[in-house]
Amino acid sequence: MIAQTPKPPYYAVIFTSVRSELDDEDYEAMATRMVELASQQPGFLGVESAREDVGITVSYWDSLEAIKRWKAHVEHREAQRLGLERWYSTFKTRISRVERDYGI
Amino acid sequence: MIAQTPKPPYYAVIFTSVRSELDDEDYEAMATRMVELASQQPGFLGVESAREDVGITVSYWDSLEAIKRWKAHVEHREAQRLGLERWYSTFKTRISRVERDYGI
Repeated sequence: MIAQTPKPPYYAVIFTSVRSELDDEDYEAMATRMVELASQQPGFLGVESAREDVGITVSYWDSLEAIKRWKAHVEHREAQRLGLERWYSTFKTRISRVERDYGI
Repeated sequence: MIAQTPKPPYYAVIFTSVRSELDDEDYEAMATRMVELASQQPGFLGVESAREDVGITVSYWDSLEAIKRWKAHVEHREAQRLGLERWYSTFKTRISRVERDYGI
């Protein structure tokens, strides 16, 4: 559940969202599919996700190029379009460079 | 619920954790208190948090110095000690620099 990432530096995409009121059973399927698809991309390092009032998905990548390619992936673009039009009342994506990490 | 952060660059502390089996009513009070206390620190920009199987709390800061001061805060240190000893079966803290963001 906690991503096993390599020694920094690497990149984190912090995607924070609030779901729309719209009930849409396609949403869960698409969310699951996007994690599966992201995991298959070159440069993918891991992902962590949780939703309560707000949803937070952090995906980890080995380069900005890998993030750019994933953003441009045709199936992911369709998910982004549906996210914007239907699923999210608001969202924010932050691209960050992990400089340091520690834990147990 | 989504933090209103300024134009990048700024810093994100991504704290990912799995709770121990230990049922502990002090945990929620401490978690709430830490968000409240963090919000009062110099350099604090915002926080987002959700927990399902994994808990993700992302706090945003204007500098690495602000993050360092918060980590060393005496009440926060006590929470970190309890987290390590009692509340978390595993956790990871990642210090990252937000380079770019976008959203609606």
